[in-house]
Amino acid sequence: MSEKPLILVTNDDGITAPGLRALIAVMNEIGDVIVVAPDSPQSAMGHAITINSTLYCSPITIDDGPQIEYSCSGTPADCVKLGVNEILNTRPAICVSGINHGSNSSINVIYSGTMSAAVEAGIEGIPAIGFSLLDYNWEANFEAVKDFVKTITLNVLENGLPDGVVLNVNFPRLKREEIKGVRVCRQAKAYWVEEFDKRTNPQGRHYYWLTGNFINEDHGEDTDEWALANGYVSVVPVQFDLTAHHAIQKLNTWKLNE
Amino acid sequence: MSEKPLILVTNDDGITAPGLRALIAVMNEIGDVIVVAPDSPQSAMGHAITINSTLYCSPITIDDGPQIEYSCSGTPADCVKLGVNEILNTRPAICVSGINHGSNSSINVIYSGTMSAAVEAGIEGIPAIGFSLLDYNWEANFEAVKDFVKTITLNVLENGLPDGVVLNVNFPRLKREEIKGVRVCRQAKAYWVEEFDKRTNPQGRHYYWLTGNFINEDHGEDTDEWALANGYVSVVPVQFDLTAHHAIQKLNTWKLNE
Repeated sequence: MSEKPLILVTNDDGITAPGLRALIAVMNEIGDVIVVAPDSPQSAMGHAITINSTLYCSPITIDDGPQIEYSCSGTPADCVKLGVNEILNTRPAICVSGINHGSNSSINVIYSGTMSAAVEAGIEGIPAIGFSLLDYNWEANFEAVKDFVKTITLNVLENGLPDGVVLNVNFPRLKREEIKGVRVCRQAKAYWVEEFDKRTNPQGRHYYWLTGNFINEDHGEDTDEWALANGYVSVVPVQFDLTAHHAIQKLNTWKLNE
Repeated sequence: MSEKPLILVTNDDGITAPGLRALIAVMNEIGDVIVVAPDSPQSAMGHAITINSTLYCSPITIDDGPQIEYSCSGTPADCVKLGVNEILNTRPAICVSGINHGSNSSINVIYSGTMSAAVEAGIEGIPAIGFSLLDYNWEANFEAVKDFVKTITLNVLENGLPDGVVLNVNFPRLKREEIKGVRVCRQAKAYWVEEFDKRTNPQGRHYYWLTGNFINEDHGEDTDEWALANGYVSVVPVQFDLTAHHAIQKLNTWKLNE
């Protein structure tokens, strides 16, 4: 290995996803790249890890490189754990995840396999970024966002990240010249209203498909939803200390010991 | 239904788990109980949801009730979504998840299926609590903690919870008379050091089991780890706005638009 930074790359759409290939292409310009990515799509896996079944992880060649790649049977968080603790001999300078086919803005960060990989790296003390493009299509155009991926990654490599913080980066579905720039944001307070599509299988048994509508009633101009709707790249600093510190004082007034 | 509160109960160890049965027994004393729980263990599923496959959810009778129960093929978060949006005709007054067989203190909240159910309910605007006992055994003694489960649940029903906050409650593995009381805490800054147990299958292919050691270097007496190690029940308010607000100002000094 040269003195270029060692970069761990993963995603949740699977190792052959065009979004991952675009991310690898950018990272090859910056450092020495090791890919440890799921062998199949793992979207909406949240922060699942594999503890009750076995994990497979094998070298694989998808294109001409120069990155080194491993295909893993586990979740995005598994890929990071395996990459850091088993595959890599040296600690990576950064871990990048994505580029996800579809949004991980607002409350979607909670369900996101892409972001769970970044958070897992953050827990292990490695600077980490999750990248997502607001386009679910397999043929989404990732060319428009490559410059931003590179700039944001170089900023993290140069500045580091605050302790306990990783970045959630989302790109609007726009042409390069239509993107107005990058905005640091907070997560919009939005949610999904679920609708279950109830059907009957050929054996007469009922089953459901989860569908839903995304509802954003948070119109703050400092949110990721506002930035994306207005042509900006959103960057949200995400923490994994989930303590609601502001609520502790109130809970201490409760009668929990009576 | 009577005028007693409607209580949605779920877990991640599966619908037959003794910890769930103990939780149902306590909730039957408080209100009208509907159980929507996974048909098989879902530990470490994080906040996974099922979007690429079908969900089954059927009425089931496990014991003499009086609760009404449904067994669901999905994750804990799926169970809450299905329960709230498809099974229940009325909005529940509270959602309780657990009692988990094993700890969900500190960073484990991130990986926890038990807590993902509580968080999902919180996102839907329903007061929610996840309960966990620091004993992984299927035969763990849940009798010792039933009083605490009831007191904490009644406090939440009476006081409500701050907007965007759910509770993560962990019980030490002690006899009733050894438990010193309840403490409101912050999540300890701890982490896992993974160790992968690499083996070879009968076909000659390598595979891994994830194992690891839990490292807590956070010795603050206001943490859940301290409370549990010192004989207290820990109550951590957990939020699902993951924005690291304190980091926004610093990130705004970066050169992201050059």
